[in-house]
Amino acid sequence: MKPTIRDVARMAEVSISTVSRVMNAPNSVVESKRNRVMEAVERLRYQPNSFARGLIYKKSFTLGLLIPDIENLYFAGVIRGMQDACIKLGYSLMICNTDRDKERLLSYIDNFHEKQVDGIVFASDVLYPEYHDKLVGCRIPFVLVSSHSDEFHIPSVEVDDEAAAYDAVKFLIDLGHKDIGMIGFNHDNSVSGPPRYEGFVRALTESGLQQNIVKSKYASHRFEHAYQAAHELFTDYPELTAVFCVADEFAMGTISYLKDRNILVPGQVSVIGFDNLRMSSMFIPKLTTIAQPIYELGYRAAEKLHELLTTGEVQVLNEKMEHKLIVRESTREK
Amino acid sequence: MKPTIRDVARMAEVSISTVSRVMNAPNSVVESKRNRVMEAVERLRYQPNSFARGLIYKKSFTLGLLIPDIENLYFAGVIRGMQDACIKLGYSLMICNTDRDKERLLSYIDNFHEKQVDGIVFASDVLYPEYHDKLVGCRIPFVLVSSHSDEFHIPSVEVDDEAAAYDAVKFLIDLGHKDIGMIGFNHDNSVSGPPRYEGFVRALTESGLQQNIVKSKYASHRFEHAYQAAHELFTDYPELTAVFCVADEFAMGTISYLKDRNILVPGQVSVIGFDNLRMSSMFIPKLTTIAQPIYELGYRAAEKLHELLTTGEVQVLNEKMEHKLIVRESTREK
Repeated sequence: MKPTIRDVARMAEVSISTVSRVMNAPNSVVESKRNRVMEAVERLRYQPNSFARGLIYKKSFTLGLLIPDIENLYFAGVIRGMQDACIKLGYSLMICNTDRDKERLLSYIDNFHEKQVDGIVFASDVLYPEYHDKLVGCRIPFVLVSSHSDEFHIPSVEVDDEAAAYDAVKFLIDLGHKDIGMIGFNHDNSVSGPPRYEGFVRALTESGLQQNIVKSKYASHRFEHAYQAAHELFTDYPELTAVFCVADEFAMGTISYLKDRNILVPGQVSVIGFDNLRMSSMFIPKLTTIAQPIYELGYRAAEKLHELLTTGEVQVLNEKMEHKLIVRESTREK
Repeated sequence: MKPTIRDVARMAEVSISTVSRVMNAPNSVVESKRNRVMEAVERLRYQPNSFARGLIYKKSFTLGLLIPDIENLYFAGVIRGMQDACIKLGYSLMICNTDRDKERLLSYIDNFHEKQVDGIVFASDVLYPEYHDKLVGCRIPFVLVSSHSDEFHIPSVEVDDEAAAYDAVKFLIDLGHKDIGMIGFNHDNSVSGPPRYEGFVRALTESGLQQNIVKSKYASHRFEHAYQAAHELFTDYPELTAVFCVADEFAMGTISYLKDRNILVPGQVSVIGFDNLRMSSMFIPKLTTIAQPIYELGYRAAEKLHELLTTGEVQVLNEKMEHKLIVRESTREK
């Protein structure tokens, strides 16, 4: 049993209201009594009840984070950044993993509502109207990270996906590649799928390599799906000497496929990824990739939510953070 | 602003105590009023206050999880299992990432105490006396996962590390290897370091290969440290044809080191890992490893904590789950 204010009062031999006054207005209590109360608080390790405190302040000092896939290393980085910001700003962080399941996500919003989180960060997934309506209905302020909404006016933090994809493909072109394919996210269930595809198209078009635009296949978010997509891509277009993958997991899946077909990376085919997961420098070969500031995205999302909670608005509605090309071993001059 | 009971009363044109009676004893309220209240509850999306509910039941229906490193894929699996069990059992899950930092861990315990979590699962780290004393002082029931305590009488769930390590080394011996090294966890800051070393020693001793016992190096928990440890191991013992790594990350670091030295895996050196992370089948070569039932460990830990919370005790104090050898591409007959 956790100690109650009653236990403190009993040990200190004072009334409950005296304990309460010591907690809230210590100078209104004579020193001898105050000391007895503080001693009892210490000995019993009594903590003023956060439920009761919540009733007074109407704040829980807790933020919620909804992530679609805890086993994707991308989110581990987002969580670390968000958690560090929460520590700085005085919040606890409650993380829920939706497994991209609509029912589960909606029930977690109920859960957060019931626990009265002050606000929610919604990571990476598409903000379907149902999610939006539920969050608005629950009156929980929220911010999107690695996502944005074209339909709704919601604060967001992400990289410029179109520009980042452009840089990746431009890098392959500058290495001399003329036969370039892409493994992208399905457009209907991803936020960054369409802009990354547009970056691919723009880089090719600028360099007069439009014939490559059709050479793209799509995968869900995981390695295994990318392996299959790579199989389709190289079956249809065996001439490819470079592939732009919109995620490091996709680059690993593609390289794994090529390895199983005895095609050398980067000897015969260059592969560039996207994200700069911790794994990307552990893989063989080490991945050339577009780095997202993953930790900083999480950190900034928490700061933005805090701004929204404390001021009722945000200065910059849709914020973009910088990406960066990291050249390692999986790409080579043609 | 979230709607309050006052808003519901105003909209339904009844008193606050009527709303309260509808929430707690609906049959005591005449139907016409009851319907007006239910309609207002629905329209305002009013949720009975969980702070207030917490005050009544003295339960928050929330469990806490302390993990040492959110970027280690091992914990992603534990989280998924624990979260699924929490959904089944009716708890929310609050995850905190300690980064193996003592101060941060102690402050998260305070945090959990203040939020009045019903119980805590403590993952993988050593249960130092300070942690134990703090948890006991806060009167929060807790359970260890992928860890155990020799000093304290604490419920735990883990694999049999000694037997699992024995099986890994025995597998290498059965493949014909006679020069076998090991990359282990430092014994002073890991729970599974000593038993996995003992399994290594037992397998070697049984087969008359004791001369290998000295051929072990130690690393912290990450890939990069294992890369360095592999360098030390092969500098001192270039004759090795097989290495037992006590974590898949260590196996990846070791293979990466060997690759950089143009030593073929498994052509010249066989490497076996431990954990069966999702990454282990994505790596090149795919890792032979000892699979831990990672998801099930998390699931079982939540069930065990629930058992402790609801009955005040657990039937099996220190529970062991089954491990399994998975043979893939990183090992070969000598």
